[in-house]
Amino acid sequence: MAESWSFLDTVEPNFRPLVVIELAKGTKEETIEWFTKRIVDKKANGGAQLLVKPLGTENGEENIYLVGASHLRLLLGAETVGLVKECSDNSMRTFTYSSRKTFKDFADDNHNFLTIAECQYIIKHELENLRAKDEKMIPGYPQAKLYPGKSIVRRLLTNGILVQIFPLHDREELKKLRHSWYGRVKVGYQPLDEIRCYFGETIALYFGFLEYFTFALIPMAVIGIPYYVFAWEDYDKYVMFATFNLLWSTVILEVWKRICAIMTYRWGTLLMKRQFEEPRPGFHGVLGINPITGKEEPVYSSIKRQIRIYLVSLPFVCLCLYFSLYVMMIYFDLEQWALDYHEANESTFSSLMLFVPSIIYAVVIEIMNRIYRYAAEFLTSWENHRLESSYQNHLILKVLVFNFLNCFASLFYIAFVLFDMKLLRQSLATLLITSQVINQFAESVFPYWLQKRHTKRMKKRMCSMKRDTDLSLVEQVNLEKEMGTYLGTFDDYLELFLQFGYVSLFSCVYPLAAVFAVLNNITEIYSDALKMCRVYKRPFAEPTANIGVWQLAFETMSVISVVTNCILIGMSPQVNALFPDSKMDLMLTVALVEHLLLAIKFIMAFVIPDKPRDIQIKLAKLEFESLEALKQQVRAPDMHNSQK
Amino acid sequence: MAESWSFLDTVEPNFRPLVVIELAKGTKEETIEWFTKRIVDKKANGGAQLLVKPLGTENGEENIYLVGASHLRLLLGAETVGLVKECSDNSMRTFTYSSRKTFKDFADDNHNFLTIAECQYIIKHELENLRAKDEKMIPGYPQAKLYPGKSIVRRLLTNGILVQIFPLHDREELKKLRHSWYGRVKVGYQPLDEIRCYFGETIALYFGFLEYFTFALIPMAVIGIPYYVFAWEDYDKYVMFATFNLLWSTVILEVWKRICAIMTYRWGTLLMKRQFEEPRPGFHGVLGINPITGKEEPVYSSIKRQIRIYLVSLPFVCLCLYFSLYVMMIYFDLEQWALDYHEANESTFSSLMLFVPSIIYAVVIEIMNRIYRYAAEFLTSWENHRLESSYQNHLILKVLVFNFLNCFASLFYIAFVLFDMKLLRQSLATLLITSQVINQFAESVFPYWLQKRHTKRMKKRMCSMKRDTDLSLVEQVNLEKEMGTYLGTFDDYLELFLQFGYVSLFSCVYPLAAVFAVLNNITEIYSDALKMCRVYKRPFAEPTANIGVWQLAFETMSVISVVTNCILIGMSPQVNALFPDSKMDLMLTVALVEHLLLAIKFIMAFVIPDKPRDIQIKLAKLEFESLEALKQQVRAPDMHNSQK
Repeated sequence: MAESWSFLDTVEPNFRPLVVIELAKGTKEETIEWFTKRIVDKKANGGAQLLVKPLGTENGEENIYLVGASHLRLLLGAETVGLVKECSDNSMRTFTYSSRKTFKDFADDNHNFLTIAECQYIIKHELENLRAKDEKMIPGYPQAKLYPGKSIVRRLLTNGILVQIFPLHDREELKKLRHSWYGRVKVGYQPLDEIRCYFGETIALYFGFLEYFTFALIPMAVIGIPYYVFAWEDYDKYVMFATFNLLWSTVILEVWKRICAIMTYRWGTLLMKRQFEEPRPGFHGVLGINPITGKEEPVYSSIKRQIRIYLVSLPFVCLCLYFSLYVMMIYFDLEQWALDYHEANESTFSSLMLFVPSIIYAVVIEIMNRIYRYAAEFLTSWENHRLESSYQNHLILKVLVFNFLNCFASLFYIAFVLFDMKLLRQSLATLLITSQVINQFAESVFPYWLQKRHTKRMKKRMCSMKRDTDLSLVEQVNLEKEMGTYLGTFDDYLELFLQFGYVSLFSCVYPLAAVFAVLNNITEIYSDALKMCRVYKRPFAEPTANIGVWQLAFETMSVISVVTNCILIGMSPQVNALFPDSKMDLMLTVALVEHLLLAIKFIMAFVIPDKPRDIQIKLAKLEFESLEALKQQVRAPDMHNSQK
Repeated sequence: MAESWSFLDTVEPNFRPLVVIELAKGTKEETIEWFTKRIVDKKANGGAQLLVKPLGTENGEENIYLVGASHLRLLLGAETVGLVKECSDNSMRTFTYSSRKTFKDFADDNHNFLTIAECQYIIKHELENLRAKDEKMIPGYPQAKLYPGKSIVRRLLTNGILVQIFPLHDREELKKLRHSWYGRVKVGYQPLDEIRCYFGETIALYFGFLEYFTFALIPMAVIGIPYYVFAWEDYDKYVMFATFNLLWSTVILEVWKRICAIMTYRWGTLLMKRQFEEPRPGFHGVLGINPITGKEEPVYSSIKRQIRIYLVSLPFVCLCLYFSLYVMMIYFDLEQWALDYHEANESTFSSLMLFVPSIIYAVVIEIMNRIYRYAAEFLTSWENHRLESSYQNHLILKVLVFNFLNCFASLFYIAFVLFDMKLLRQSLATLLITSQVINQFAESVFPYWLQKRHTKRMKKRMCSMKRDTDLSLVEQVNLEKEMGTYLGTFDDYLELFLQFGYVSLFSCVYPLAAVFAVLNNITEIYSDALKMCRVYKRPFAEPTANIGVWQLAFETMSVISVVTNCILIGMSPQVNALFPDSKMDLMLTVALVEHLLLAIKFIMAFVIPDKPRDIQIKLAKLEFESLEALKQQVRAPDMHNSQK
């Protein structure tokens, strides 16, 4: 085995480790040899043509390998994954090796042309596309079946031979990023471009959205404060506030699309063509022919999946929703009991007791959400979706519906069944603040504390053999491999989504919600940044052009909030006083206003273009150029034929 | 000039005329010579490489030319316009000349591989893409400026030198089509594929939609008949009918998208890539640089256009809407007067008089619609849109809003202000039937009669010199060039759209509307077919993949109809009787049901896939193949570089 390493070492003396592969302890020698050979093998032989190096044999850890690649290999890989980079003439174009000279900042010795995140993404892509040739199984593991074209890494992962693959932190870069991100107390924007270079587009886009959303809430918060300070109770003011909120939320969601387009155009992902989607790792089925690619791969009947979705998942979700409503009713009983208690023996203790049911309920909701989340993941995985995107959509849908009901059902009940605006305001405040505190704690503070403790212990264990810089790499890898895995932006978006619900659904009752949301989001930016940089393993970059299904979720929420706010305003005594003789007229007016607002929302969403004009022109220009190129290709034989 | 014809005549002895070019009488000789030379010139010299022939010099008519093309030229043109044809393996692929052997039914001597409509579309495309090289003006017309890249045909058209270009009817084919379309009394589908071959996809899609829509209305009509026959007045039955209608209309609109995808996939237009859109002929501005193509062309400031739209067109449209409402109020005064008259002196005459205001109003509406249409066309043209599609969208929007208000405002007024269900039913019936009769008459019967008369006169004038088959062509061209021009499917769709409004907006009040709609549509199919085949000039085929903005318009109408029907049901005395003590409960229930129905509609629209699964798979397969081809292209240099 040593020969292959020595050969590579002579070719590339300054091997730069980018990605870590951790195999299960006690993996058979022949498997390791075969796998590493496939990784370093030439493209022509079906290899990935990457560089690989064991981490260090001193303390006998033979199960961790570092993967890198030569500069040339990375550039060719950038072409394969279809990266889009800026040209010297400021236009964005798909990178190809042959046209490399036309790109901005390109030089043969400039190793910073590709960001580290891009390099790691390329290596991940190449590793995942390492496919079986004529092997029938993983050598040494007859139960791990292979067939031509099956991704080797995915098979190794599903069989537990491969524990994990993760990209290595770059300590220098991370330090710089930390400093400019949250290292100093400052007022200003996040360094989104640097975040994108280090963590990739998906995460940068989340932070971009978080920041944008926080700024967008500020007008609501500013308008909301005087309502609290002066205890304004005139509903004409509330109506103004609610109307502003509703139109504002439409505007901010539409404007976000434009800002998102500007960012992702600059990052190149707006133009990036998606590769053909492979089955997700967990997908299983009998071997058959894929009707699209014509290749052999597991197939699973779509009807079976539909049956599982509609006959098992759907009833289960409904049951959970029912259970959640049941818990809610218990909460109201508790609430009533606390109120009775307070009335019977009035004291500071009893008035504090008034808040207890809400706090308990908020905690229970959080727990239920988390349990349901596991069930939803299990069910969605059992539904056996072929594509990761379809899996994600079904999971997000399940989780969203449940979380929505859990968080808002009690508020709807209070508002539209009990008609108790005072209780609504109080519950809203308790729910909002409790959930924010719990989230901040559960997401960052607690894991950070765990991580700190763990690091200390690790350092203590290792300091005995601490010698030189090379060992520091071993130490780093060992530290990072034990860190938690960041599971994607789902939870972070979900939190924002629910917060948006608290702010917008009942905005005319509790204008202060926006203030809390803004305060929470400012700390959220810092705690999420801390989480990304210090608590979790570095995640692989994932190119993306927008926030996907979340845009739809936020838009749906803003439609629902039009309905709730109109009803709330219609129910207010002040508005009722305007229609003293006819409740009918009041209801008709409310319904009319609601439909009008909805119509305005839809028209606004339709009229405001999703992309700014200059981005539209740039995109049109690119499309025009590719059509022209196609025409030239077509015209060539045309000319030829017409000569004869 | 004779040399060039004689040269072509020897090359292609059986010249088949496809397209007619009519120049203005007295066009200068040098202009004709230059223009025809450009048409026949080689592609390499910037010509269109088509065949052209004067119609016939006997009676001195030098201003009409016939254009044709060799079979080879048409095949190359099919590649240029990006036609999609069926391969031998039943997949649809973009036609290229080099891969011609792989296409189904292709043979070098099979001149029916391309349909006549396709051949004519290719010739039109080639003529329109005949561009100025270094000419500064049209020879002989110094005021007709040219600049490099300007479409010559468009300049000739705007300067009135070119009167018209139209495709010639094929008498044999037309006879066959007429026979299978409406020539015999039969129950069954229209020959949509034949219509598509003869008239192109846009028109075939209209007839497809008309037929589909008629079939889709049949269930509504069938359910509606007993309501009329047994004079059912129980509102629980009406509620059932309305609910069925609302969900049904969502289903039919979603299913139409699928059927449309199946048809256009078969026709190849679903896969056809649109060419880059050129400025529409009427567009004017100072010469500048197009930021997308980088070419010189007229540019017009977008801000100026916005000002024209928002400061002139929008106020004008609002004024027209106001005027229309004013006319409506006059109608109600008339209606009241007729009622008073009827009550004062009751007689058959006075009861007939009751219908007079409605009929007058329907006629006035038709007239106002037509006048407004001209104003809208003028305004939209004055807004100076660069693209034909943008022009069309603005025009359609203007016309739709006005027509909607004109047709339905009185009904809304009767229903929701007067609360007079009897009058509503009567007005609905009168409006629906009157507008259908007027339309059928104005659209087909009257033009057909004019056409008939004109043909007779023409025949009389020509019979003196009737000699052989060649003269029959001259006769045909002379007849056809005088025929009216079919202005596109706009009016036909508009008529269907308004009909859909009559049927769905008040369906729970007048279930018989669907019956009238079905009856009208059956005759409409025949009268429209007659119109296409006998009244109008043959239109150029226009490839299209869907019904475009009309899908959106129909969907909007079906959303509005949910609202109106819910209110109507809520207002009915029977439903009111269910809530004897509380109007509030009634209103809340109605609002709840309405929102529920709207939610179901949106979920249904979201859940039903727009394309059937097999079409999805076929499209994915094609995309996969093109990605693979791209990868192969990419891998080639990759391999090469990795060897060194």
